[in-house]
Amino acid sequence: MKLYDSRRAPNPRRVRIFPAEKGIAVPAVEVDIIAREHLDGAAAYATPFGLLPVLEFDDGTRISESIAICRYFDALHPQPALFGEGALGVAHVEMWNRLLEHEYFRHVANAFRHTHPAMKELEKPQIAELAASSKPRALAFLEKFDRELAGRKFAAGDSYSVADITGLCAFDFMKVARIACPPEFSNVLRWHGDVSARPSATA
Amino acid sequence: MKLYDSRRAPNPRRVRIFPAEKGIAVPAVEVDIIAREHLDGAAAYATPFGLLPVLEFDDGTRISESIAICRYFDALHPQPALFGEGALGVAHVEMWNRLLEHEYFRHVANAFRHTHPAMKELEKPQIAELAASSKPRALAFLEKFDRELAGRKFAAGDSYSVADITGLCAFDFMKVARIACPPEFSNVLRWHGDVSARPSATA
Repeated sequence: MKLYDSRRAPNPRRVRIFPAEKGIAVPAVEVDIIAREHLDGAAAYATPFGLLPVLEFDDGTRISESIAICRYFDALHPQPALFGEGALGVAHVEMWNRLLEHEYFRHVANAFRHTHPAMKELEKPQIAELAASSKPRALAFLEKFDRELAGRKFAAGDSYSVADITGLCAFDFMKVARIACPPEFSNVLRWHGDVSARPSATA
Repeated sequence: MKLYDSRRAPNPRRVRIFPAEKGIAVPAVEVDIIAREHLDGAAAYATPFGLLPVLEFDDGTRISESIAICRYFDALHPQPALFGEGALGVAHVEMWNRLLEHEYFRHVANAFRHTHPAMKELEKPQIAELAASSKPRALAFLEKFDRELAGRKFAAGDSYSVADITGLCAFDFMKVARIACPPEFSNVLRWHGDVSARPSATA
């Protein structure tokens, strides 16, 4: 088994943190996305949709999509239960993982992808108007997330979950997207300090 | 328990089909999204992110996000296993559900949301350039999906899954987005005929 990985991109980071929280070691191959290795280079055969990360098994079976790879590890190593426990717990984690992905991470990514010169060849067309509308949407989400975090320790409740991993990777990608977290979002900043302090954050 | 639903929108349809496949009846309340009931009307209190569907419990607990609601039903009624079985089966269903959502449904939705006059007040700003780039992306996905479906019956394998539900809702929303499926994508059309013929498709 090996993971096609990229230290430059935020989604592969989710798939490094997740197994680290479970104590699983995954052999990784670094793919140079700037050199387009995943699109028309050595790793292209493994990424039919041009997306990283990809988990490849020795028999050639491949799983793409960060959360799909996380679910594979989760099925084999259920504890700690990073996708939640009990019907309502599972639903809350899925809800917050999706909200953080679609209402936050997506806008942070668009603010970067649709403006940065390094993305000119990868994101065609770059749409300046989309980037401009993405930054206020990311901040509007953070404002709501700040109110949520006033009442609980982690993104989806009192236990750390995959939603925290998605949130952390999105938050740290704001630096690349040139979006600053306003200092008045004190609950978000406390949460970010907590999840960043875990050993998995450096995975 | 009640489901805040909309017959006009594609995501709530996913949450009607899913329990129908499991034989679960869910009491629903129709929300008039054109009249903005979910944003500043009678249902606004239940939708902090302005998104439908929302599942509300008698104690006031609410779950938003279509797939989160599906996972709640799945945890209580595991059969048939619409999120896959076994570590690799679960990963394949998650992968294809996400690919269909992010690389297909998203583009179909953007083609509609960023052009249609009815969305002028709900999607601000409407970005014509984004809509224009969305249609070819949706069709590029369908071309790859057609090749995949040459080798299997359903989206994620030989069993029907939540990925088929996402795909069906996205495919049928192409009509609203004014995107036609090219007749040469015969595997996609065969698959669409199969999933449309199931009783759940009318839920």
